[in-house]
Amino acid sequence: MTDTELPVTLLGTGAMGRALAGTLLDDDRPVTLWNRTPGRAADLLARGATGAATVREAVAAGGPVVVCLLDHAAVHATLDPVADALRGRTIVNLTTSTPAEARELASWSAERGIAHLDGAIMATPPMIGGPGAQILYSGSRTVFDAHRELLDRWAASTYDGADAGRASLLDLAMLAAMYSMFTGFLHGAAMVRAGGVTGVEFAERATPFLAAMTESFAASAAVLDSGDFSAPPQSLDWTGAALDTIGRASREQGVDPAPVDLLRALVRQQIDAGHGADDLGRIAEGLRVGRSAA
Amino acid sequence: MTDTELPVTLLGTGAMGRALAGTLLDDDRPVTLWNRTPGRAADLLARGATGAATVREAVAAGGPVVVCLLDHAAVHATLDPVADALRGRTIVNLTTSTPAEARELASWSAERGIAHLDGAIMATPPMIGGPGAQILYSGSRTVFDAHRELLDRWAASTYDGADAGRASLLDLAMLAAMYSMFTGFLHGAAMVRAGGVTGVEFAERATPFLAAMTESFAASAAVLDSGDFSAPPQSLDWTGAALDTIGRASREQGVDPAPVDLLRALVRQQIDAGHGADDLGRIAEGLRVGRSAA
Repeated sequence: MTDTELPVTLLGTGAMGRALAGTLLDDDRPVTLWNRTPGRAADLLARGATGAATVREAVAAGGPVVVCLLDHAAVHATLDPVADALRGRTIVNLTTSTPAEARELASWSAERGIAHLDGAIMATPPMIGGPGAQILYSGSRTVFDAHRELLDRWAASTYDGADAGRASLLDLAMLAAMYSMFTGFLHGAAMVRAGGVTGVEFAERATPFLAAMTESFAASAAVLDSGDFSAPPQSLDWTGAALDTIGRASREQGVDPAPVDLLRALVRQQIDAGHGADDLGRIAEGLRVGRSAA
Repeated sequence: MTDTELPVTLLGTGAMGRALAGTLLDDDRPVTLWNRTPGRAADLLARGATGAATVREAVAAGGPVVVCLLDHAAVHATLDPVADALRGRTIVNLTTSTPAEARELASWSAERGIAHLDGAIMATPPMIGGPGAQILYSGSRTVFDAHRELLDRWAASTYDGADAGRASLLDLAMLAAMYSMFTGFLHGAAMVRAGGVTGVEFAERATPFLAAMTESFAASAAVLDSGDFSAPPQSLDWTGAALDTIGRASREQGVDPAPVDLLRALVRQQIDAGHGADDLGRIAEGLRVGRSAA
């Protein structure tokens, strides 16, 4: 039996679980589904998926157990009662988890003789199985290699090492950056729309501009890694003045400048500490607040 | 005399003013400089620029008067005393200004018989005269057309209409978006660096990812323009949960999640208003706070 003929068990049929299952059904691969709330996957059952009444029944179908639930608490609520049945088996957890949660599940699995791979999905459900979708994995290399064909069917797969928390860390850090970028785009769009320019016109201008500005990340990151902030392209003093102008323009348009005010406060903190001539990257230092209990 | 042989007067020799002047001196074009604090342009004088002791003397050299000062207050402090000498002349104001400030200078100029073009620079000083630099202009089309060769020497030039405030509005809205993107990048970099991943490695992953995600702006903007937020790729409820996970991961790493918390608060505001099933674009509505006095 080749990997592509192996049955797959999928726990969770939310929007993402349904997309993962749908891709496998496109390939006529045997898929067994379980969901806490029944009846959410009638279309998938009609397409040939097997519905399991219990988690135990779903696990008994064999093959890798793919977990795509609401959160880490739901993962334990679902897996803990069937830990005995999972011994010697493989779980691929695609539930959005923090690095600490991913590591906790790795330990839990190891203690119970379960092979574990953590995956962090960088795609929306409609992107699964198509170009542009990416999933980062870390944890068991053996599991990653054994099921590579399955994983690549869903998205471009990368293996980021044995530390089960690493895929999640990279994923959530990139999503943090993405959501701030979205906040910024929506803030800028609100400004121009208040001034009679359409959002679509703004997107036409902002898309190539922001895409080009991502090219500055490499230099910015090198400054962070070096810890030498003394030769900036533009100083924190200069950036602070620019942010003041942007904030003033935002208020003129009747738009809350909270997104730029947030950066302004971080810039001010560094200027007040005597770093006004330094690089913007210094604000990353200001975000370090000490490690909290995981 | 062709446009490229016309003398140019430049008021302000900060980093940007010096870059603008340097490009013209590369072309052996006659340049007259004035700066409030003398002695900041010795290198440019050594390369053939003429130094003027007073604004009046600088204006008397003829040609377009390019203004690149600290802020709008500095523009008036510099131009008001020589308004009589500017009658019948042209000013190109490249000082960073809000839309209301640009419109105010347009009115001030019109009342005094001065032709006025407002320019918004989307480049750092080292980028001036090279590829990638862009300057948006609005105000007098006649001035833009007459001096197009000069303007294009500095950067790719676009004319955005007769409303003098429009170039500034588009510029500052794009910069607002850019600075939020930078905040997000630095936040994500702080998260991974606390977990032992270098900033440079993060940049290698985040650069293509964020560049690709800018492609979503067009669809997001179309939703904003339509006012119909009812068919989101992912709901505000879902996004709120994702932001909670990112915030938790940030705290785990000892990094202040303030950038994602800001968006989380805007998302919560819309959910509380009954819009949990709607598109993220709704948060742009939450940023509208009513127009302040300009």
